[in-house]
Parts: sequence; C-alpha cells; structure tokens
Amino acid sequence: MKPVVSIIMGSTSDLPVMGKAAELLNEFEIPFEINALSAHRTPAEVEVFAKSAQDRGIKVIIAAAGMAAHLPGVIASMTTLPVIGVPINASLDGMDSLLAIVQMPPGIPVATVGIDGALNAAILAVQMMASDNTELQGKLANYKAGLKKKIVKANEELSQLKYKYKTN
Amino acid sequence: MKPVVSIIMGSTSDLPVMGKAAELLNEFEIPFEINALSAHRTPAEVEVFAKSAQDRGIKVIIAAAGMAAHLPGVIASMTTLPVIGVPINASLDGMDSLLAIVQMPPGIPVATVGIDGALNAAILAVQMMASDNTELQGKLANYKAGLKKKIVKANEELSQLKYKYKTN
Amino acid sequence: MKPVVSIIMGSTSDLPVMGKAAELLNEFEIPFEINALSAHRTPAEVEVFAKSAQDRGIKVIIAAAGMAAHLPGVIASMTTLPVIGVPINASLDGMDSLLAIVQMPPGIPVATVGIDGALNAAILAVQMMASDNTELQGKLANYKAGLKKKIVKANEELSQLKYKYKTN
Amino acid sequence: MKPVVSIIMGSTSDLPVMGKAAELLNEFEIPFEINALSAHRTPAEVEVFAKSAQDRGIKVIIAAAGMAAHLPGVIASMTTLPVIGVPINASLDGMDSLLAIVQMPPGIPVATVGIDGALNAAILAVQMMASDNTELQGKLANYKAGLKKKIVKANEELSQLKYKYKTN
Amino acid sequence: MKPVVSIIMGSTSDLPVMGKAAELLNEFEIPFEINALSAHRTPAEVEVFAKSAQDRGIKVIIAAAGMAAHLPGVIASMTTLPVIGVPINASLDGMDSLLAIVQMPPGIPVATVGIDGALNAAILAVQMMASDNTELQGKLANYKAGLKKKIVKANEELSQLKYKYKTN
Amino acid sequence: MKPVVSIIMGSTSDLPVMGKAAELLNEFEIPFEINALSAHRTPAEVEVFAKSAQDRGIKVIIAAAGMAAHLPGVIASMTTLPVIGVPINASLDGMDSLLAIVQMPPGIPVATVGIDGALNAAILAVQMMASDNTELQGKLANYKAGLKKKIVKANEELSQLKYKYKTN
Amino acid sequence: MKPVVSIIMGSTSDLPVMGKAAELLNEFEIPFEINALSAHRTPAEVEVFAKSAQDRGIKVIIAAAGMAAHLPGVIASMTTLPVIGVPINASLDGMDSLLAIVQMPPGIPVATVGIDGALNAAILAVQMMASDNTELQGKLANYKAGLKKKIVKANEELSQLKYKYKTN
Amino acid sequence: MKPVVSIIMGSTSDLPVMGKAAELLNEFEIPFEINALSAHRTPAEVEVFAKSAQDRGIKVIIAAAGMAAHLPGVIASMTTLPVIGVPINASLDGMDSLLAIVQMPPGIPVATVGIDGALNAAILAVQMMASDNTELQGKLANYKAGLKKKIVKANEELSQLKYKYKTN
Repeated sequence: MKPVVSIIMGSTSDLPVMGKAAELLNEFEIPFEINALSAHRTPAEVEVFAKSAQDRGIKVIIAAAGMAAHLPGVIASMTTLPVIGVPINASLDGMDSLLAIVQMPPGIPVATVGIDGALNAAILAVQMMASDNTELQGKLANYKAGLKKKIVKANEELSQLKYKYKTN
Repeated sequence: MKPVVSIIMGSTSDLPVMGKAAELLNEFEIPFEINALSAHRTPAEVEVFAKSAQDRGIKVIIAAAGMAAHLPGVIASMTTLPVIGVPINASLDGMDSLLAIVQMPPGIPVATVGIDGALNAAILAVQMMASDNTELQGKLANYKAGLKKKIVKANEELSQLKYKYKTN
Repeated sequence: MKPVVSIIMGSTSDLPVMGKAAELLNEFEIPFEINALSAHRTPAEVEVFAKSAQDRGIKVIIAAAGMAAHLPGVIASMTTLPVIGVPINASLDGMDSLLAIVQMPPGIPVATVGIDGALNAAILAVQMMASDNTELQGKLANYKAGLKKKIVKANEELSQLKYKYKTN
Repeated sequence: MKPVVSIIMGSTSDLPVMGKAAELLNEFEIPFEINALSAHRTPAEVEVFAKSAQDRGIKVIIAAAGMAAHLPGVIASMTTLPVIGVPINASLDGMDSLLAIVQMPPGIPVATVGIDGALNAAILAVQMMASDNTELQGKLANYKAGLKKKIVKANEELSQLKYKYKTN
Repeated sequence: MKPVVSIIMGSTSDLPVMGKAAELLNEFEIPFEINALSAHRTPAEVEVFAKSAQDRGIKVIIAAAGMAAHLPGVIASMTTLPVIGVPINASLDGMDSLLAIVQMPPGIPVATVGIDGALNAAILAVQMMASDNTELQGKLANYKAGLKKKIVKANEELSQLKYKYKTN
Repeated sequence: MKPVVSIIMGSTSDLPVMGKAAELLNEFEIPFEINALSAHRTPAEVEVFAKSAQDRGIKVIIAAAGMAAHLPGVIASMTTLPVIGVPINASLDGMDSLLAIVQMPPGIPVATVGIDGALNAAILAVQMMASDNTELQGKLANYKAGLKKKIVKANEELSQLKYKYKTN
Repeated sequence: MKPVVSIIMGSTSDLPVMGKAAELLNEFEIPFEINALSAHRTPAEVEVFAKSAQDRGIKVIIAAAGMAAHLPGVIASMTTLPVIGVPINASLDGMDSLLAIVQMPPGIPVATVGIDGALNAAILAVQMMASDNTELQGKLANYKAGLKKKIVKANEELSQLKYKYKTN
Repeated sequence: MKPVVSIIMGSTSDLPVMGKAAELLNEFEIPFEINALSAHRTPAEVEVFAKSAQDRGIKVIIAAAGMAAHLPGVIASMTTLPVIGVPINASLDGMDSLLAIVQMPPGIPVATVGIDGALNAAILAVQMMASDNTELQGKLANYKAGLKKKIVKANEELSQLKYKYKTN
C-alpha cells in the first residue's frame, strides 16, 4: 500500500490540528504518510521530499505551517503536484500564516484552506483525487450527506428549549 | 400561536450566544421559532426554509453564523423578508464573520448587528415589527427606559467607592 | 404626501454615496425626506429629530456617517424606530465607521449595512415596511427578479469572449 | 470538445482579473467555459449549475467573488468537485472577500488562492487535473521552467545598472 | 471641596480599569467625582451632565467606553471642556473602541489615550490643569521622577540573573 | 508676543496637514510657533526643546509624526506639559502612526487625535488653555456654534435635490 | 570579560520573553549585559547608555519593548551600532509594538525580529558578529545543524501514530 | 573589487524601491552586487546563491520580496550570514509581506526593516559591517549628522510661513 497523500507539518505541536486530516483520510481509506519537515530548519530535506513526491506516487501534498509560513509555498515551488496549505494559528490569530500561505506570487499557487482547517484540507485532497474515481465520488457524496446529521441533531436539541413564546 | 420571528443558527454551539435573542423575544411575548440550518451543510433545507418563511407568517429572520458566515446572506438572497445577521465569534475575534455578513453586494442587504450581538438582533426584530403596532412601541419604550436602571445601579455602586478626594 | 423614510447624513460630501438610497426609494414610490444632521455639530437638532420622527410618521431612519461614526447610534438611543446605519468610507477604508456603527452595546441596535452601502440601506428599509404590505412585497419580488438581468447581460458579454479552447 | 474547467464570476467587472485564468487554460489547451452567476442574485441558477457540473464533465470549478464573497462556498456546498475560490479586491483591499472565501466551516472546503489571483487559480486547476495525465505534467514542468525566464530577464536588466561600487 | 475632574464610565464593569484614574487623582489630591452615564442608555442624563459640567467647576472630563464607544465624543459635542477618552477593551482587543473614540470629525476633538489607559488619562488631566499651577507642576515632576524607580528596581532584579557569560 | 502653543513636525511634507492647526490657532488669536524636529534625526534638539518649553511659556505642545511615530511620546517623556499627538498618514493608512502614538505605557500620556487630525489638535489645545480663561471659552462656544453652519448649508443643498417622492 | 552584546528591556515583566536571548548568548559564550531602560521613564539614562555603548565595546544592542514601543528606535537614533528590536506582545497581539519598531523613518533603521522573538534577536546578534570570526561561524553552522534534531524527533513521534491507512 | 553586500530582489518591478539601497551603498563606497532571484521561480538558483555567498566574501544579504514574501526567510535558512528583509508593498499595503518576513520561527531570524524600507536596509548593512571598521563608523556618524540638515532646511521653510499670531 503506497501513500497517495502526504501530510507535512513543521512540528509535533501542529499534531492536535493536523490529526483531523489524518483521521479523515483514514476514514476515506486513502493511504497517506505523515512527516515533519521545516522550510527553515531542513531545507535540504524539503527539497528531496518535494522533488521525489510525484515519482513516489503522491497525488496531493497537505502542508501545515504557522507564523511566517513558508513550507507550503516552498514545496509548491519544487513540484507540480497540487499543494494544499493549512495556516496554523501560532500567533496573531493565524493572520500571519494565512497571508504567508495564500498570497503566493503568480505562477506558484497554494490551495489554501482556513486557519487550522486540517479537516477541510483532507476533504479537498479527496475531492482532487475523486475526479476520475466514482468510488471516491460516492464516498464524498455520502460524507456530504452525513454533514446534515449534525444539523438534524442540533434541531433536536433546539426543539427541547422551553420558552413560553417559542412555537417549535 | 404562529411564529413571527425565526431564529436560525448553524450549530448548537451558537446557543449560548443566541439564547439571548430567544429570551428577549419571549420577554416581549413575540412568538418565535428556533432552528438549525447551515448554508453549507443543508443548502436544500435553507432554500425550503427561506422560500416558505413569508407564507408561514414569519416577519423577520435572525440568522447567526461564524467564520465565512454565508447563512444570513444566502437566506437574504431567497426571500424579501428582512434578514438580521449576527456575526458569531468563532475565529479571528469575529472579524471574518462580521465582514462575511455585512459586506453584501448591492441588491441583497443583511441588517447586521455587532459580533455576538444576539440581544440586539432580537430588539431590532421587535423594532421592525413595531412600526404599526402601538402595543409593541410601548413595550420598546418601556424596555428602553429600563436600560437606565443599570446605569442607576452602577451609580449607586460608584457612590460607595471611598477616596479621600472623591467628592460624590 | 408625508415621508415614511428619513435619510440623514452628516455632510453633502456623503451625497454621491447616499444618493443611491434616495433613487431606490423614489423608484419604489416611497415618500422620503433627506436631511443633514451631525451627532457632534448639531446634537440638539439630532435630539429633536430623533424624538419627533415617529410622531411625524417616519417608519425607518437611514443614517450615514464616516470616521468615528456616532450618528446612527445616537439616533437609535433616542427613538424606538429601526435605524439603518451606513458606514461611509472617509478614512481607513471605512473600517473605523463600520466598527463605530455596528458594535453597538446591548440594548440599542443599529441595523448596519456594508461600507458605502446606501442602496442596500434603502432596500432594507423597504423590506422592513413591506411586512404587512403586499404591494411592496410584490415590488421587492420584482426588484429581486430584476437583479438577474445584470447576470444575464454579463453572460452575453462573456459569451463573446473568444479563446480557442473556450467552449461556450 | 466539452469543457473540463468552469470559470464563474459574479460580474463582467471581474473580467480584467479573471481573464488571466482563461488565458492560462487556453495556453494549456484545456477546454473551459466562462459563465456569470451570483450567489445572491441568481441562487436558483447557481444550484442548477453546481449540481449538474460533474455530470456535464466538469473536473474543477474556479469561482471568483468580491466583498462578502459567498459564491465559491455556496457552489462548494452543492457539489463534490473541487472548487477554487478567487477573492476579488472590490473593497477593503480584498480582505473581506479573502476571509469570506477561505474561512469555510468544517466539511466544505474551498481551495483559496491570493487576492485577484486568477492566474494561480488556473494553474492550480491544471495541477489538479494533471494527477494521472503525464502530458499535462509535462506542460506544467515546462511552464514552471518558463517562470525562470522572467528572472533571467530581470538579471539582464539589473546587470545594466551602473554604480561605481556595483560589481556585477 | 468641589470636584474639578469628572470620571464617567458606562458600567461598573469598567471599574477595574478606571479605578486607576481615581487612585492617581487621589494621589495628586485633586477633587474628583465618578459617575456612570451611557450615551445610548441615558442620553438625556449625558446632555444634562455635559452642559452643566463647566458651570459646576469641572475642568476636565475623563470618559471611558467600549465597543462602538460614543460616550466621549457625545460629551465632547456638548461642552467646550477638554474631554479625555479611554477606549475600553470589551471586544476586538479594543480596536473598535479606540477607532470610535479617536477618529472624531473636524471640530470636536477627543484627547484619546491608549486602550484601557485610565492611569494615563488621569495624568493627562493633571497636566492640563497644571498649566498655571506651579504646585501641580511640582507634583508632576516628582511623579515623573518616581517612574524611574521601577526601572531602578528592575535593574536590581536583572543584576541577580546568573549566567556564566553575563557580565553585569 | 510670546508663543503659548508649539507645533512640531518632522518634515515640511507634514505641512499640508499641520497647516490647519496653525490656521485655527491664528483664528483664535493664540500666539504659536512652528518648528521641525525629529525624534530620530535630531534627538539632542528634541531634548533641548522639550526641557525648555515650559520655561519659555509654552502651555501645550502639538507634535505630528508618521510611520513609527515616536516624536510625541519622546517629547512627552521630557516635559510635564500636555502633549497632543497627531498621527500622520504616511503608510498603512496611518494605523502605524496612530498605534505608535496612542499606545503609550503607563505614566507618560499623549493626548492623541485622529489620523491627520491637525485641526482637532489645535482645538484641543485651545480647550486646554480655556480652563480659566472666559474669553477663550466664549470663542470656543462661538466656534462650536459655527460648526452648525456647515450643516445648515448642507441642508440647503439637500433641499434642492429633486425626486418625485422626496418630500422636503 | 567585557560585554559585546547589550540586552535592554523596559521592565522585568519582559524577562520571561527576553531570557531566551540571554540563554542563547550564554550558549554561544558571548559576553553580554542585561539592563532595564525606558525610553519614556528614563530618557536621560537611555541617552547615556546609547552614546557610550560603542566606546564600552558593545557591538550589537538588543532592545525589547511593548505597546508604543519607542525604545529600539530611540536608541538607534543615538548610536551607529546596529540595534535589534524585539516587539513584545503587551496589547493588540503585539501588532502595535511591531509597527512602532519596524516602521522607522528613512535614515534610522531598527533590525526587527518577530513578536516576542527574543531567541531570534540573539541569533541575529551572533550572525552580525560572526562576519570576521570563523569560530562563531562554526558555532552558528553547528547551531543550524542542531535545528534539524527537533524535526528528526518530530518524525519519530509521527512514526508512532497508528492509523490503518497510514503508510509510514 | 569583490562585493561584500548582495542585494536580491524578485523582479525588476522592485527596482524603484530597491535602487535606494544601491545608492546608499555606493555613497558609502561599499562594493555590492544586485541580482534577481525568486524563492518560488528559481529555488535551485536561490540555494546555490545562499550556500556560496559567504565563501564569495559576502558579509550581508539584503533580500526584498512582496506578497507571501518567502525569499528572505528561505535564504536565511541556507546561510549563517545576516539577512536583511525588505517587505515590498505589492498588495494589502505591504502587511502580507511584512508578516511573511518578520514572523520567522525560532532559529532562523530575518532582520526586517519597514515596508519599502530599502534605504534603511542598506544603512543597517553598513552598521553591521562597521563593527570593527572605524572608517565606516566615521562615515555612519557623518551620515547621521547629515540627517539633521533636512530638519534645518524644514525649519527654514517653516520660518517663512506667515500668520499674524505665529511668533517665529
């Protein structure tokens, strides 16, 4: 079983956030790998990783970083695989990492999700791979249908709120 | 007793904030309903809700949402009822939801209140309905008069502060 | 013909923005008045205005202001009519006026629209008054239907773009 | 020739920005379509579009919007295709549209590029489709190699700057 | 003993912040009063206060407010006494109240201090009154000299830090 | 005629803004001086200025600065005279200078006015000096009364706007 | 042993942050001193310090400050030694101090590091002194190599995460 | 003549800003080189440059970049030379590039100057090199003295302003 999605983070302190990406991929039965890399502390390893990813069978890279978050952009500059960037809230409510990831110059995009948006990064990775894969498309449709359940459950809870003038 | 105000939220996690809207409406003896809907998770239900609200007798819709808060605007695009948007502070101190609610394009307004401003949303809803209703106008005038009480009480507390050079 | 909507601005420099509110109300055949008032320069006149508005038959007040925009909130503190606030971009891209209008304390809401959002303020005023007025509801439905026309026209223009690999 | 990428914008005023996406796709010989749709003005058409896109053969949707930019998120809620969001700078330097697009709630991602980043949106779309397409991979590699040319040309211009103490 | 400085706040929740202003004035032996007033909840009382302050012997008004902080500006519009505004951090880290206080329109200044800067507001009030009062000037000079003590004490603590290569 | 107000700026490029302070003081017949000083370029001169100002008869200092605006705070640290800070918009819409002036540490206040708020700085200076000066108080009252004229004139212009449904 | 780096802070409350700079310099066996100084509370001492630093053998100054952070810039205006500024997060997430330090006017630079970036300030000081010092260059190279260890350790932890579809 | 300072920029569009750094170095008679490099478009060339700079005799690197500005940080990760980062205002008033440059993670500092602060970057580079170079120290002292001239000239212009109540 070879990984098709690669999750990269700069530190295990990102794991509470990024674990949600791993769980989602696992739930979708998509083989993935998780590694720690740092654009600033291990630039050589980042290069080796980025340049070899496609040949190793990776289809999508999910890269998380905080502060002056360079990791997603640096990887994107070294591969033609789509790179999904997850801004980590490590300072300034995450605005620094959001801007450092999303505002890429022309020619080198990073597909950016919301601050600490690891779950959405994984769903986006699945969507990218589902393009010619009807099985994955079906799983995504099921997943989306499942999102309603939270709302249904919320409505049940709301229905139990008691106010004299509440009518439902 | 049919509801005339409809409170919508995306999740029960919004309830500690939005409960204040329910309490205010209850205090004003205005029939209301509370439902959970999500612009992104239950778009079909949002559409059914928005398009039927006026026929069901709803006069004002109060919609709360956080982050990239689309719910108030999406509802507003599907009804001519006034929609009051409550930006929920779920990230970035609520600035993302405030901007995502208030900065509507020309043609589709959302009446936006402050971040987590559920109480004000409910008062605004009452004000909208009081236009030709002298009873409600009277209640609003009483409510407004009541706002002074907090100030009176604050002054009593302040009068008990002791400083040698404090003169009141 | 007595006015039912009152448009207030602090200076004729706001007229290029606020004129759109006047045009929309005119188009909907809703009698309105336009006055200049300043929370800071004419506080006494603001008070007279705010306290007499309801008795003069005004149903909704639209108040525009820039910078430390106090006008909408000050008026709202002196009437139980719904007050719609229009943040004017006079500095800081309008962020100062947006926050000074929308972040009202509990008890005194201002229905805030987007920065320079005069048109939306007027539509919102109509929506508030349409509650028991099927004629206005019809006009609003027509107006909303008319919004599509811009999109239809845009599609016609887009259809004329020529690219070898463009398929529509 | 059926389109595989769909470019959506809310107004022809977005065309000067979004035209760069069209040009890039044309350059890569990828069939695409361009349409105008508005989350707020034509919600019904948006729904028809979003729900039929996959069956019509679309692989990736590129959606541009400004202000309280709901279009990319609303489309993403109605399809499992990957949706790339382009925040348009229509107000507040584009910060409102950036936040309204990127800060999507869990479950419904939008792959966000930089403000006015239409070119990068198109490259990202190509990257998503290149996954199992070695021809596209080759074109992307060529494109990336071509990005160097601007730098080479810049160096030529810089080499002609004359200062006594400049050594290259 | 008649008060010469008037401290105004909107709620006793501001007391932990504003108490520092009272303490400083007490330390300088300047008679002062403390009252609760609200631009939005007690506009009539604000007017009475602002218009009578000078005749009652008040020389400087210190007004604190949070969120869409109108109190200092509203008072400033009704008196020619200098008004010092203290932005209270009640939301958005205090940026909303700072902007709502400092960005006053031409003609009606508010002397704004930093967010939660009650102590500085009181010092500023003393400075304003010291103009023709050599006793107060002397106290201010002493106070300023006293500020050094914190630094001297800090240096003593720093001198006790032990590092092999620390030389002082 | 000895100056009682001192206007300080860092560059003649601030003159178009700061000229309004000079005009206001001139209109109030208050002797003033204007000098250029820089916290960073002429720190020694700043010190001489700040330490001698009170002895030379200066009652209030108005200091303008842009970017990392240190001038008002540095002067305030060297005198017990009240210092009014005018943030100049030289970058970032003036947010950097506003924060660098207003957010002073405890003990050393700067009375901050709005961005480019030179006129208000001068009015505030007059208000500070009017405390025991009934002539100045009278002039201020007149000035304030005069502010209404702009509003009266605005109303005249607004009265000439013609719309079928405009009623005034 | 004479100090070559001088660490300055305005208060011992900055010590938890600035201690990291001291530790790094100690680790590199670079003699340093730590002092408390305040641009606003001890301007005279700041001047003495800044003007004598070079003659005392100091090569680099590291100055930390929060809020309207003037200390680094004021020191920089009085010496030609390089000054490294550390913005302390004391309010507004540190944005006020960052802007008050980094946005220096032309002629007087401050080498600014990230918010609370004391460690990086010390490394930067070492880099500046390593220019003609091969021993320091070697230590820096070792330090940089050591940064990888955190990543290696992180990878070990990540390798122990167990998911059915995780492949490494 | 071998260069000791290396100026790097991503595009000739940065030249109007970065030319000021070149001019300053030329004025100080410091040999320098100027090259275009891009962290994203020419990552391999960036690596070659960064790793060879010290051996080629470079003492300080000045790197300018806009948007998600990775160039200074990427270079800093590959050399132990001090790297000065110049945030270029290419979008969002330069806030994105400022944050993407200054908020570096622990271990890899970038000495950041103000937005578009090329002149200050060059002065800072000279300050770093002047540490053991009394000739450069003398030039810096002269330069600093020269900064006063602008102020002197400004005072001459201000002295010619004519107001009846202006006293200097």
